[in-house]
Amino acid sequence: MVNEMSAVANALFTINNTWMLIAAFLVFIMHLGFASLEAGLTQAKNTVNILFKNVSIVAIGILTYAICGFNLMYPGNFNGYFGFAGFGINAPDGAAGLIEYADGAYTYFTDFIFQAMFAATAATIVSGAVAERIKLNSFLVFSTFYVALIYPIAGSWKWGYGWLDQIGFHDFAGSTLVHSVGGWAALVGAYTLGPRLGKYGKNGRMKPILGHNMPLAAIGVFLLWFGWYGFNGGSVLSADPGALSLVFVTTTLAAAAGVIGAMLTSWGISNKPDLSMILNGSLAGLVGITAGADVISPMNSVVIGFIAGVLVVISVIQFDKLKIDDPVGAISVHLVCGIWGTLAVGIFSAEHSIGIQVLGVLSYGTFCFISANIIFRIVKLLMGLRVSEEEEILGLDMGEHDMESYAGFQIFSIE
Amino acid sequence: MVNEMSAVANALFTINNTWMLIAAFLVFIMHLGFASLEAGLTQAKNTVNILFKNVSIVAIGILTYAICGFNLMYPGNFNGYFGFAGFGINAPDGAAGLIEYADGAYTYFTDFIFQAMFAATAATIVSGAVAERIKLNSFLVFSTFYVALIYPIAGSWKWGYGWLDQIGFHDFAGSTLVHSVGGWAALVGAYTLGPRLGKYGKNGRMKPILGHNMPLAAIGVFLLWFGWYGFNGGSVLSADPGALSLVFVTTTLAAAAGVIGAMLTSWGISNKPDLSMILNGSLAGLVGITAGADVISPMNSVVIGFIAGVLVVISVIQFDKLKIDDPVGAISVHLVCGIWGTLAVGIFSAEHSIGIQVLGVLSYGTFCFISANIIFRIVKLLMGLRVSEEEEILGLDMGEHDMESYAGFQIFSIE
Amino acid sequence: MVNEMSAVANALFTINNTWMLIAAFLVFIMHLGFASLEAGLTQAKNTVNILFKNVSIVAIGILTYAICGFNLMYPGNFNGYFGFAGFGINAPDGAAGLIEYADGAYTYFTDFIFQAMFAATAATIVSGAVAERIKLNSFLVFSTFYVALIYPIAGSWKWGYGWLDQIGFHDFAGSTLVHSVGGWAALVGAYTLGPRLGKYGKNGRMKPILGHNMPLAAIGVFLLWFGWYGFNGGSVLSADPGALSLVFVTTTLAAAAGVIGAMLTSWGISNKPDLSMILNGSLAGLVGITAGADVISPMNSVVIGFIAGVLVVISVIQFDKLKIDDPVGAISVHLVCGIWGTLAVGIFSAEHSIGIQVLGVLSYGTFCFISANIIFRIVKLLMGLRVSEEEEILGLDMGEHDMESYAGFQIFSIE
Repeated sequence: MVNEMSAVANALFTINNTWMLIAAFLVFIMHLGFASLEAGLTQAKNTVNILFKNVSIVAIGILTYAICGFNLMYPGNFNGYFGFAGFGINAPDGAAGLIEYADGAYTYFTDFIFQAMFAATAATIVSGAVAERIKLNSFLVFSTFYVALIYPIAGSWKWGYGWLDQIGFHDFAGSTLVHSVGGWAALVGAYTLGPRLGKYGKNGRMKPILGHNMPLAAIGVFLLWFGWYGFNGGSVLSADPGALSLVFVTTTLAAAAGVIGAMLTSWGISNKPDLSMILNGSLAGLVGITAGADVISPMNSVVIGFIAGVLVVISVIQFDKLKIDDPVGAISVHLVCGIWGTLAVGIFSAEHSIGIQVLGVLSYGTFCFISANIIFRIVKLLMGLRVSEEEEILGLDMGEHDMESYAGFQIFSIE
Repeated sequence: MVNEMSAVANALFTINNTWMLIAAFLVFIMHLGFASLEAGLTQAKNTVNILFKNVSIVAIGILTYAICGFNLMYPGNFNGYFGFAGFGINAPDGAAGLIEYADGAYTYFTDFIFQAMFAATAATIVSGAVAERIKLNSFLVFSTFYVALIYPIAGSWKWGYGWLDQIGFHDFAGSTLVHSVGGWAALVGAYTLGPRLGKYGKNGRMKPILGHNMPLAAIGVFLLWFGWYGFNGGSVLSADPGALSLVFVTTTLAAAAGVIGAMLTSWGISNKPDLSMILNGSLAGLVGITAGADVISPMNSVVIGFIAGVLVVISVIQFDKLKIDDPVGAISVHLVCGIWGTLAVGIFSAEHSIGIQVLGVLSYGTFCFISANIIFRIVKLLMGLRVSEEEEILGLDMGEHDMESYAGFQIFSIE
Repeated sequence: MVNEMSAVANALFTINNTWMLIAAFLVFIMHLGFASLEAGLTQAKNTVNILFKNVSIVAIGILTYAICGFNLMYPGNFNGYFGFAGFGINAPDGAAGLIEYADGAYTYFTDFIFQAMFAATAATIVSGAVAERIKLNSFLVFSTFYVALIYPIAGSWKWGYGWLDQIGFHDFAGSTLVHSVGGWAALVGAYTLGPRLGKYGKNGRMKPILGHNMPLAAIGVFLLWFGWYGFNGGSVLSADPGALSLVFVTTTLAAAAGVIGAMLTSWGISNKPDLSMILNGSLAGLVGITAGADVISPMNSVVIGFIAGVLVVISVIQFDKLKIDDPVGAISVHLVCGIWGTLAVGIFSAEHSIGIQVLGVLSYGTFCFISANIIFRIVKLLMGLRVSEEEEILGLDMGEHDMESYAGFQIFSIE
């Protein structure tokens, strides 16, 4: 009898574990999504630089997570604010190192790899907001510290069973823990660097700096949406049919509604159907539903996604008025809609307190805003943050890398 | 004993449900495939417009499917021709809402999300055939009605257990129900709009209008082939090992044979190996096997795919002779090979009647042809269908969207 | 009782089989990765040709594997050097045709389709090294014979339970069986063809011929990394949680470390952060871990990947000094790091003999080197290998295909 039960449990364990690994490779491909979107929405002369940043940060994010991030984020029994379980990764019980949760089970290595794929995401979000003017070295150093230390410490407060988890803060897959954490650093980076040359003229007039490759941007968005099925779906932490299929539905409906929300808003404002706005609208919907994908009804996920799509358009316009130059709209998508999604859990789910959701948002905001400021300032002091005017005009591809992205193509500078 | 059996059943239910969700995200990424292929095979000046259409239609398709499509397509007990189970989606029994089939089981939400991913496909097929000249508004309105009403009503006849299902019509994954349904509307759209300016010169001479980005087209085709493992694989409606692995084999062999069929045919005709023909050849093979991927032997799937590859080349040439201008070959791929695949089931599978397959093809053809005509005519009457000559020459990107797809690149108009 | 146990076994069988099919579609998308990488790192005037080769070779590889490759590679009981189980594929026991292994089970068709996806890979590796100068016909004929005969015969020695398997040679997922087998033919092809015109000037000076589309190259690398989760993950031959999650971790860490190894090495040597080197660095890490992904610890996988990243940079430079012109670095990535990875199993795993690993490397090297030479020479004799100087200067797109890849874009030849 024991053997039979164990065979059944093993079958269920195997499917849960397999789903978590599938979720891991889906989150991995989001990094190609981020790279494509950022490259597509910026100028051709900075493309090599953007790709270099995005490939590097995936590698750095994964390795630092193995070195210290995982054990900072999941320190085990700790004071709820900061704990560290030691350097490196070690399966507690051989290769399998079974981890059990309420709804399922998977191995220690599965736990690590799924979380490691998440980790690099926060740094990648920053990349877009500081694009086309940050020094490569400085970005890599900032990102390394942010992803190795700040992201996992912040994460431990909720997902590591820290103090915010204890008081009932809800953030299913990271509207706050991933997207806002990245978004706050994006905001700090963008205003610390200042706008790109020529972006804001005299008298507050804004001059758009056009993205150079819209198919690439669209590829980016579709891959992000695709990968989000692992981002949100893996956050179920098992293949539980009811929970997983609900998450797929809420995630999809919010993304679709985000497209429509952004389309109607931007079409209404500018009288032209704006492709970059509907692309960001789908991401806005996805970020917006991420905190509550497990507890929001399908109908309410449409409402949350639609509002996120409206918000992202308004936010992009407002940040431009504030002369905070964010080439890809990362702050609006990840920070603004990350906050919205976190609050929406308190609004739409009867089981969660809006007050505690607000407390969570403020706590993460304070910690990340201060941390990002400190790291950016130290980096600025020691290495400088911004490329020279000559290099910015020439493009970072030739300046930093001595390499063109589209050798042979006739490309002119847009002035 | 009951508990043990239920644990086993739960494990099998979990894997079946997980596979169906995996199939859903694979079908989702086909929309990036469609967008990339259509953009790659058309002119650079219309790329923003094409991407906008494809992103919008995914959102519209999913949302309208949630509002009414799902309940039109699966109305439950109905007269076999038309039924409607009401607006919105509601899991019958809590979040899990178990759905059982002969070979497996999955949740209501899984059922919905997998079918919703299919729904938008039909409208996306139309997009390619009417590209580079249709007004954005008019396309969106047409597509909304076609995907919200015509596709699900037609689908109910077979997959909703309607009259064609009752008499034994076989269309495993939608050679007819998806591809021909889209293909008929593509045909109606293309002839209603008329050819692009300059496509057909005097004396019946045809002037090719070249696609602007062949890597993008190749990305599109590979992603469509990739996603087809979910399109056909998910249509097994479970992870049943024998059935699912057979479907993977027949799908793959037909796609490969389609490449070879199109290669030999086009190389023979034009004396030049034509990339766009082998790309369409693989899709032709995939569309061709879709109706019978579950009942065709591996060897016969090679034959069906090869013939589809031959057919698509001949068909593209013939439609050009008829001056029906289909920029991406969508009618040849989806309608012609969709019909071929449906008939092939009657030819190659002893268990199915060729007569009933013909009846199915004709019934869908009649219904879709008439419906598409009615909707296109009403849209034409109320909003107009075609952009102005000036806008067509300028490109729809600047005309409809005031936005370039490749800012900074030197692009000339091909005359 | 029998029924109960069989239901449990069926659930486990279903998840194992499903995972293997998922792995198959992941390996499939690697072909888009190869196509994108090769196209991105070469000149715009040869892009149609490269895409044509890559699409064709997938189709040819799959079909020849169905005709004879599968039964050459897995001949059943044979002399250990060469065996053939007959033409075509036939499930031994109906559609399901259960195949059982120590750790799992899947169907005959699943076995075939997973292995078929691997097969085309070897030929695709060659494609990159001979790019921009080989005649299309000649490449297709070479590849057909290499993938239909040489790859499966070589494979049978280890994976078909042949002589190298009997003496304990270890190559988990194909550092040697796939990557070196392709790499040897790449080496033979590159030196037989000679360098591209103008690549090596007088006095041994090397002139870089720049890739035309770095986002496309980055898409290729990310998709290859993504697909590698199926390439290595599927080689577990089941969804066994401990084994599969270890393979995910070692694969990921090696790829990340490869990026860092290549970054530091190339940055140190050239003083510029080189995007193409870190892209190849990740692939180097992946190829390096492929032989031992199942037996290497996470920490050692970082070491192996890092060394692979260093090696690939040095190797690319050395091959250029030898005037062996490999446009995409395929020989360095697949052959050099494939050898490294195979030897690393002997170095880092106490259970495996370095002597036998060396023997395996030498045996495959000898067989593939001689075979590739014979086939290339026969093809050269009968059809010629290299396009004319005029065609090479004009580009193979116009020369072989009469088709441009980027119609409308202003592209100049880089001289």
